[in-house]
Amino acid sequence: MYRTHTCGELRLEHQGIEVTLAGWVQRKRELGGMTFVDLRDRYGITQLVFDEKASAELNDKLKKLGREFVIQATGHVRERSSKNDHLPTGDIEMDVADLKVLSPSAVPPFTIEDESDGGDDIRMKYRYLDLRRNPVRENLVLRSKMAHAIRSYLNDQEFIETETPVLIKSTPEGARDFVVPSRMNEGQFYALPQSPQVFKQLLMVAGFDRYYQIVKCFRDEDLRADRQPEFTQIDCEMAFVEQEDVLNTFEGLTKHLFKAIKNVDVADFPRMSYADAMINYGSDKPDIRFDMLIKDLTDVVKGHQFSVFDDAEFIGAICAEGCADYTRKQLDALTNWVKRPQIGAKGMVYLKCNADGTFKSSVDKFYSEDELQKWASACGAKAGDLILLLSGEKASMLDALGALRLEMGKQLGLMDKNTFKPLWVVDFPLLEWDEETQRHYAMHHPFTAPKPEDIALLDTAPGKVRANAYDLVINGVEIGGGSVRIYDSELQSRMFDLLGFTKEEAQAQFGFLMSAFKYGAPPHAGIAFGFDRLVSLFAGLDSIRDVIAFPKNNAGRDVMIDSPSPIAQNQLDELNLKVVLKEKK
Amino acid sequence: MYRTHTCGELRLEHQGIEVTLAGWVQRKRELGGMTFVDLRDRYGITQLVFDEKASAELNDKLKKLGREFVIQATGHVRERSSKNDHLPTGDIEMDVADLKVLSPSAVPPFTIEDESDGGDDIRMKYRYLDLRRNPVRENLVLRSKMAHAIRSYLNDQEFIETETPVLIKSTPEGARDFVVPSRMNEGQFYALPQSPQVFKQLLMVAGFDRYYQIVKCFRDEDLRADRQPEFTQIDCEMAFVEQEDVLNTFEGLTKHLFKAIKNVDVADFPRMSYADAMINYGSDKPDIRFDMLIKDLTDVVKGHQFSVFDDAEFIGAICAEGCADYTRKQLDALTNWVKRPQIGAKGMVYLKCNADGTFKSSVDKFYSEDELQKWASACGAKAGDLILLLSGEKASMLDALGALRLEMGKQLGLMDKNTFKPLWVVDFPLLEWDEETQRHYAMHHPFTAPKPEDIALLDTAPGKVRANAYDLVINGVEIGGGSVRIYDSELQSRMFDLLGFTKEEAQAQFGFLMSAFKYGAPPHAGIAFGFDRLVSLFAGLDSIRDVIAFPKNNAGRDVMIDSPSPIAQNQLDELNLKVVLKEKK
Repeated sequence: MYRTHTCGELRLEHQGIEVTLAGWVQRKRELGGMTFVDLRDRYGITQLVFDEKASAELNDKLKKLGREFVIQATGHVRERSSKNDHLPTGDIEMDVADLKVLSPSAVPPFTIEDESDGGDDIRMKYRYLDLRRNPVRENLVLRSKMAHAIRSYLNDQEFIETETPVLIKSTPEGARDFVVPSRMNEGQFYALPQSPQVFKQLLMVAGFDRYYQIVKCFRDEDLRADRQPEFTQIDCEMAFVEQEDVLNTFEGLTKHLFKAIKNVDVADFPRMSYADAMINYGSDKPDIRFDMLIKDLTDVVKGHQFSVFDDAEFIGAICAEGCADYTRKQLDALTNWVKRPQIGAKGMVYLKCNADGTFKSSVDKFYSEDELQKWASACGAKAGDLILLLSGEKASMLDALGALRLEMGKQLGLMDKNTFKPLWVVDFPLLEWDEETQRHYAMHHPFTAPKPEDIALLDTAPGKVRANAYDLVINGVEIGGGSVRIYDSELQSRMFDLLGFTKEEAQAQFGFLMSAFKYGAPPHAGIAFGFDRLVSLFAGLDSIRDVIAFPKNNAGRDVMIDSPSPIAQNQLDELNLKVVLKEKK
Repeated sequence: MYRTHTCGELRLEHQGIEVTLAGWVQRKRELGGMTFVDLRDRYGITQLVFDEKASAELNDKLKKLGREFVIQATGHVRERSSKNDHLPTGDIEMDVADLKVLSPSAVPPFTIEDESDGGDDIRMKYRYLDLRRNPVRENLVLRSKMAHAIRSYLNDQEFIETETPVLIKSTPEGARDFVVPSRMNEGQFYALPQSPQVFKQLLMVAGFDRYYQIVKCFRDEDLRADRQPEFTQIDCEMAFVEQEDVLNTFEGLTKHLFKAIKNVDVADFPRMSYADAMINYGSDKPDIRFDMLIKDLTDVVKGHQFSVFDDAEFIGAICAEGCADYTRKQLDALTNWVKRPQIGAKGMVYLKCNADGTFKSSVDKFYSEDELQKWASACGAKAGDLILLLSGEKASMLDALGALRLEMGKQLGLMDKNTFKPLWVVDFPLLEWDEETQRHYAMHHPFTAPKPEDIALLDTAPGKVRANAYDLVINGVEIGGGSVRIYDSELQSRMFDLLGFTKEEAQAQFGFLMSAFKYGAPPHAGIAFGFDRLVSLFAGLDSIRDVIAFPKNNAGRDVMIDSPSPIAQNQLDELNLKVVLKEKK
């Protein structure tokens, strides 16, 4: 027993009793012959007080104490003369009678405070020290709490948590697999799962009815800021259900989480078609915390000798409320912003709906006040608003207007992190056409069922077929997605065919699934949530890295353990492998 | 909505209402113009009744129905004339008005019944059909329930569930690693974790205080019956604790599980030293459901011109109660059993303590009745008992007697699967000497702390140093193990030194851990339970394979998905790898 209480536990009611605490030295200060030490553990901070005249031996130990030393202290609890209202333990302190240093500490490479002086790289290298900081640890405590709340909810709903294998089989579809050479099966490889998709479908064929798992998944992709080679999914599947059953079940889970974890009541989630999301928000993950919908002004603005508009496929606009007083400088900055390659607009036209009822636009010489009034009406703008127009190819301008909308939302403070607006985006296209490879790809995955009413289009206009697929979007973040699945082996074969698989390839890769469908497969559907994203949303963070205990950097490296790393020659030999570096080819 | 109720739900109280059920056709029989179908889902079986004269259309569908067809049926619930007491739904049946075939089924390759006619291989190939069988599914439902009970318990005790990385770093210590080539870091590899050992220790350094995770671990070992390349651990670690704190916490968890899952109260777990376990049970995982302790008869039996005993280092015996009437044939069979290579005895001596008070042994010509009486007394044998003696090298004879004890326990029915006798085995040796490589290996792992009172022996007699290490053993099965950890970088260096690491190797492999210990590491200790084994113990099964949804066979293959398998040349090229098959060397 290293302690009788934790550093977050003692209150006035403990006054007079002898206690032992253990923890880290947060700080030490000397004042009028007394030394004060703030002792920290996971549960809180307690003030220890040493009377420097009380014991020479104790005083000796005290002199050597530095930040982050691990100590054990015993003494009586007493009321503090100057209370600290910021600490739950702020009414008391320990009058230390005995002190033991359990572990000394070198000076940490950065300060272990809520706001650290350490940069990203050094904090990642010493992640175990970074994790000592309250905000970092709190993110991971939140993660643990959320995982437990999710499991309890799904457990109560009779979902069976089932572990699916990590060593599976490489498939050419989807992202790049991580592979694992097999020693016992020469020249062969396992793959790490990008998701347990086929296994959860097989569990439905097996009659498991309701499956879930919080599970690690793996993708060997070039990493962007918000990607990790290993990430965690809340993976679910249900049998004998239709799309609505899945949406209702997981809307229930999501509401439960908001209530249980954040004590927030969220309203019923609206459903929005993919087509509407793209037209109104320029995004398949619309942030509906604010409106500022995209308006199609193509018909309104064309035909006035302004060739930029006249030649464009599409002219769209958003209306930023109360921004008519934007300065030239602000407007220029916005114009530059939309011209960046990742936004891709050629330029921007603005229309100020001045407070006095007049209009001022960047294209005044082409349009009369009356014409401009029509723009304002089409946008539902009122005096004081600012209308921003982009023109060009329709799909890319919708994207650009979607991005501009978010930028304006940010500038206007419309994206409060403590407001949560979930919605379901539904009716995604089944297939995407890829110009480069001249073939269709599954937008969700090859197991997604087309809408029954669109099946006839599979032969004539596959690009127009809608899927029974859905995404849960919260505050512009795609939190999860899923679909109703194909459960008929012939329709599944036809899908593989459409996706350019030969019969042999389909058989080699997914023969077991199509075979399973021949023995009585129930209708089924499922969903997977990105757990890392969900936690970071709840934590009010922008990156998933902050909710992962030991994340990897953008090169897929764990800089703390220095991995990946070369392996021994005998390991390579046992695996029948030879490394052939690119330089040597 | 494919159903209004499940197949396990309807009772007399539902009589008269119209319901829709969906599920699999378990069986179909015709009787007096009526057709009866047992409809099965995960929740149970409900009898559907079709009046063959009611509807020609319905009757037509009915004729085509085969086993394992997935159907949806609608009709009214009515009381059954002949009730079935074996079914919870046995009081009612559905009078079917409408029937829809959702999925037909080919004839399954084996019967989907509690006792199947399918052999192991075919059931593994069609695992999704095997999982439909009640006993198989129930094992996995048990697993899910146990996981949730474990998490709830640890959650209540303020353990933080923290995910540790799966893509880590290969280390030469321990079993063989599975490795994962990195595409982004040429010629370098990740390894899959054999356990999250160092990460959980780093979480203690980080102040997490109480960590747990139910986590997949990986070992590339040649597979025995009860091993899988991927397996699941309940992995835990605590800071500011001593051995007793860990034992108490996880004894509490284990008792909770027995109570919550099996409604069994188990007594406090005895503690037994490794040395006592080896001497009395010939095993470091003693099955204490029965006594039959090993007795050392070396001093009692030596010196009677029986050279086999006189030349032996050790003569030990067990006393099998009430077996004095074992026949010649039974004794010969036992003798052959102990002479098998895996047991390794040269022969066996027996002593029958006959019911009439006389003795009969296989070495009567060397020993008088008085001498044999001494054996009996030394073994605490009474009239009617059978004493079995083995002689030879001490350590291997203790092993052999331990195995013989279990064999006799089995023959005497002393190993009831519904009796649970957990215990803690403690005070394991810190190190094992390996003759072949002429070096010490860590018995537990290199991070285990020696007992403080034995530290002085590290230099003089390292083989005698005991560790603060412990195993939880239940019914002769090692369920879990753990240890108090080293938290001092110097002692850790010394351990690596003892284990034959050079300074450079230790630094390269574990530098980050020794570095972490320099910044204030708390005393900590932990444990890991084999979750697969724990579930199979609770399920009354001998193999872990039956509690894993998609297990691999002894060659590490998943025969259902046919994995591992070759990968495409472009995948190998991207990974800078070339396969060099053994034959081609």
